[in-house]
Amino acid sequence: MSRTRIQHFSISLDGFGTGEGLTREAPLGHAGERLHQWMLKTGWWHEMIGKPGGSGCIDDTLLRLFAPGIGAEIMGAGKFGPPGWQDDPDWKSWWGANPPFHTPVFVLTHRPRPSIEMEGGTTFHFLNAPPTEALAAAREAAKGHDVRIGGGVAMLRDFLAARLVDHMHLVVVPILLGRGARLWDGLEGLERGYEVEMASSAGGVTHVMFTRAN
Amino acid sequence: MSRTRIQHFSISLDGFGTGEGLTREAPLGHAGERLHQWMLKTGWWHEMIGKPGGSGCIDDTLLRLFAPGIGAEIMGAGKFGPPGWQDDPDWKSWWGANPPFHTPVFVLTHRPRPSIEMEGGTTFHFLNAPPTEALAAAREAAKGHDVRIGGGVAMLRDFLAARLVDHMHLVVVPILLGRGARLWDGLEGLERGYEVEMASSAGGVTHVMFTRAN
Repeated sequence: MSRTRIQHFSISLDGFGTGEGLTREAPLGHAGERLHQWMLKTGWWHEMIGKPGGSGCIDDTLLRLFAPGIGAEIMGAGKFGPPGWQDDPDWKSWWGANPPFHTPVFVLTHRPRPSIEMEGGTTFHFLNAPPTEALAAAREAAKGHDVRIGGGVAMLRDFLAARLVDHMHLVVVPILLGRGARLWDGLEGLERGYEVEMASSAGGVTHVMFTRAN
Repeated sequence: MSRTRIQHFSISLDGFGTGEGLTREAPLGHAGERLHQWMLKTGWWHEMIGKPGGSGCIDDTLLRLFAPGIGAEIMGAGKFGPPGWQDDPDWKSWWGANPPFHTPVFVLTHRPRPSIEMEGGTTFHFLNAPPTEALAAAREAAKGHDVRIGGGVAMLRDFLAARLVDHMHLVVVPILLGRGARLWDGLEGLERGYEVEMASSAGGVTHVMFTRAN
């Protein structure tokens, strides 16, 4: 059965998934790269950028679950580009000519534009739709495979609050961002209906897994 | 050297140390006992209440650091009693005739009263003083031993913001309380100056240790 999955979404110990003051030069605002240092050390990341080396611990193992079994992604407007990208007709995402998705990607925005086909199998579709409708479109495109719920924070909250997420893998990084977009707002009692497992890693983060209970 | 220590303070995954709606009947408000279920399973707790059994995992081991080396505690008014205890001249804490502290305990309150000597070595002193002054008094009473910073949330934040804490042991419980008193407010960048270590346990919680870097 096709599931919805959040894969390795990093948050600070105080629950922020991005910082304050997002711009084209600082996509995560004052958080900078601090939420993702753990990832940059892994073998998975090294392969991605074509460099040898990198760690092979649980951090690396869990990152390798990013692609397998995924048939489509849904992402929020805030992940696709910096504030105001809708005014730039040439904006084609942060990820260059060959984005790392390699599936259809549905971008939620109030100002849809024509689809963009990239290299490597990624096609960006633009949808002005609530979570359930977007999920129906992504499920159809995923052809029986799973749908990744990609973030950012606001759309994760929407999908979680609507109980549309089957599996969520968060990575808690031991820093206190203090401000930005907080994942947990409005999600009291979310743990009900999920099994929750936590596992700290040698890389200095804690993986938190929510898996829908049967 | 005498250090200041926070020992096994439980918070929810979204950072709340108590719930909303604290009363005499519900000391932690809507959180109930959910933040402390992990503790009730341990051998340490079983010994405390005079029952055999209980687990012996890392949860138990870390709980046993509560007393050794401690010469005094400082606690906030909200830990000593329910809202309004200052109006009850007979209120002598939640913990019965023989409280589990066995040292001088300094209760921070805007309405001090005479000290109360309990059984087992606990004496409650009442202080209307800012953190640095309270700490000076507790240090003197501790006679070279460590001072426990006991909570609740508001006084922990005050001591942390003033950089008066040498060691903090938090226990992250995988529930989302959604409301109540949040430990992390106003503590952006707290991790600087500390080494932070996280360890998930078989008991289903994650221990987070802040230790002041030298």
